[in-house]
Amino acid sequence: MLTPREAWSRLEPHLHPIDRAEPVATAEALGRVLAEDTRAPADLPHFARSAMDGYAVRAEDTHGATEGLPAYLKVIGEIAMGKPAELKLSPGEAALIHTGGMLALGADAVVMVENTRGVDASMIEVVRPTAKGENVIQVGEDMAKGDALLPRGSLLRPQDIGSLLSLGMTKVLVFQKVSVALIPTGDELVPPEGEPGPGQIRNTNVFALAALAAKAGATPVVMDIVRDNYESLKATAQKALELADIVVFSAGSSVSTRDMTARVIDSLGKPGVLVHGVSLRPGKPTILAAVGRKPVFGLPGNPASAMITFGIFVTPSIYRLSGCSQSPLRYAVKARLTRNIPSATGREDYVPVKIEEKNGEMFADPVFGKSNLLFAMIRADGLAKVPLDKAGMTAGELVEITLF
Amino acid sequence: MLTPREAWSRLEPHLHPIDRAEPVATAEALGRVLAEDTRAPADLPHFARSAMDGYAVRAEDTHGATEGLPAYLKVIGEIAMGKPAELKLSPGEAALIHTGGMLALGADAVVMVENTRGVDASMIEVVRPTAKGENVIQVGEDMAKGDALLPRGSLLRPQDIGSLLSLGMTKVLVFQKVSVALIPTGDELVPPEGEPGPGQIRNTNVFALAALAAKAGATPVVMDIVRDNYESLKATAQKALELADIVVFSAGSSVSTRDMTARVIDSLGKPGVLVHGVSLRPGKPTILAAVGRKPVFGLPGNPASAMITFGIFVTPSIYRLSGCSQSPLRYAVKARLTRNIPSATGREDYVPVKIEEKNGEMFADPVFGKSNLLFAMIRADGLAKVPLDKAGMTAGELVEITLF
Repeated sequence: MLTPREAWSRLEPHLHPIDRAEPVATAEALGRVLAEDTRAPADLPHFARSAMDGYAVRAEDTHGATEGLPAYLKVIGEIAMGKPAELKLSPGEAALIHTGGMLALGADAVVMVENTRGVDASMIEVVRPTAKGENVIQVGEDMAKGDALLPRGSLLRPQDIGSLLSLGMTKVLVFQKVSVALIPTGDELVPPEGEPGPGQIRNTNVFALAALAAKAGATPVVMDIVRDNYESLKATAQKALELADIVVFSAGSSVSTRDMTARVIDSLGKPGVLVHGVSLRPGKPTILAAVGRKPVFGLPGNPASAMITFGIFVTPSIYRLSGCSQSPLRYAVKARLTRNIPSATGREDYVPVKIEEKNGEMFADPVFGKSNLLFAMIRADGLAKVPLDKAGMTAGELVEITLF
Repeated sequence: MLTPREAWSRLEPHLHPIDRAEPVATAEALGRVLAEDTRAPADLPHFARSAMDGYAVRAEDTHGATEGLPAYLKVIGEIAMGKPAELKLSPGEAALIHTGGMLALGADAVVMVENTRGVDASMIEVVRPTAKGENVIQVGEDMAKGDALLPRGSLLRPQDIGSLLSLGMTKVLVFQKVSVALIPTGDELVPPEGEPGPGQIRNTNVFALAALAAKAGATPVVMDIVRDNYESLKATAQKALELADIVVFSAGSSVSTRDMTARVIDSLGKPGVLVHGVSLRPGKPTILAAVGRKPVFGLPGNPASAMITFGIFVTPSIYRLSGCSQSPLRYAVKARLTRNIPSATGREDYVPVKIEEKNGEMFADPVFGKSNLLFAMIRADGLAKVPLDKAGMTAGELVEITLF
């Protein structure tokens, strides 16, 4: 059986960015992925600005100034915000300036108001020397015209939106959202609003997976329930492949239906099933496949297994297809285990844990449940990972946790 | 000047959940906050299910079974998925069962298919003993009727949506989204689509802050640019207080406009300004206030300062007003500094850092920029925090980082 990393490397060559772009308003582009390289079309700032409240000065006029021997400067006026600087400093002169104000002509530094004392309405003492350029944001200092801003493939964050707008880019070209079709399969399923009889359960996994897809920036498409029957599965899968960029079977969890899912996938086109079974718990029966340029997944029927394998294989595939140059940083947090976790060498285990902080240290308390029941997932704050090469972990060890 | 923690404790008593609820479809409720306690209306599962592919058996029939001395059982049929169990086991009998299938009458355990060998079409050998209840999910084992499910104040995650639906709760009562009015102020501002003249800049901070508000689950309301003029500021603030649950002035950053913002807030109603100035860098000039039951903030005009203070004060206020019983867990990640960060004791500093992983260890490389320019924020992956009691941190030290 393949390790999760080996399984991913079989799938990876089949993940191609969808490469369909659309223009959107930058202010509405949070979480979208840039489809173009952006460059600063102008200097930012485009005029020398004060970084402080104080006085625009000629630095040389303040040289040698101290508390005991201050420099005396004549205040010739105030620089209004949002106006071109009209004041021109002659030697021995200063102008009142606010943070963000345009430097007066002739000025080359700003002395902070804290380093001045008022003498009278038109005279100040400067009690510390100021260097040329001090407290001044020079033209192009934040970004120079032509500087690379955000490259194609950037996932847009709030500061990126601010930066693009500050350079006047009110529209940007982004990749279209990736669509993910979710196919619930199983003879035992009834719709969530139905009343399950003996032997039946409600169809819910696809809705949890749809929420995971939405969190990853994709558009989920939830298909109708399909019975465990080769022809129905195949017809629905074909429809899903037409509708969406990624197809996920939320599978019946028994061996027979898994094998049927694999046969259906193989019948849809090349390359078909790439991986059938991963040394992962939960999630062993996972199927990774591709039909043409579209990745196809068969996930286990157990709710926790379905969510965990979605996170390991489908979420990164969504980012890849979205044109994202890098998945969002989700560094694992480390915490100390409160109890032993059994595992087996050669298998990667994921265990739901509740996080608690005591005296500034973080502890991970495993939430055990037979067969990884849903309730364990709702009581947990994240998943602890037992690496492939460990036969379990013991209480007190540091474990890596991916937070929900 | 107050520490960030002291400042927060002055604001906190004025943060009241908005307490306006609305029913929504559970499948669409990702990121919403429950406004009602939920309990399991029925047992889950409501019938004893198999956790494995194998054979439903009477455990006692397998006692003492080994490879050398297997137990022979007669297979009387297959339990169909999604159907009530109609087969009834007599001593010495077994029924083929799939994961999720309903246990046959008379059966009390499931033996995994891996622990059986087929003899002929109607006979198997069981090569390991099976305990009563083994591989069976009992009635109510995941949740028992009446069990507390998710309490009021839960921020709904994908697994929560799955759990609610699995119990047939297709609608839930959630708190309405909190609205946040963002007021851009400054004589120097032109709209993002405008061409700034000398001394002018584009109005962009409010759009970055709107994106932060949206990320926290709120509805941002971006107001028109207001000039630094007491009457205009007051009129816009009154309108914003009518429109929204939280009001944020994205302020002119000079002392004079900050003082004007504080006077305007005090004129709007009690309690008015609670905190004016926090020992925080960037973010010293932050104003925390409340008018009636609505929190009001005056944030610095520097783009990075505005975003950082929004994250420290406004984001947790949004969660509080949203009725969230706990802010989403955003545990700080730890990384090793690559360079010294200067600071001053008695002040909390936030420095944008780029994260790099080398040999499995995480390193934080400070992105310095004069006056925390926007470009530093777009090159960074998160913010490193220099605690209040430290006069800077040195290269090699572990630093706490909040990822963007």
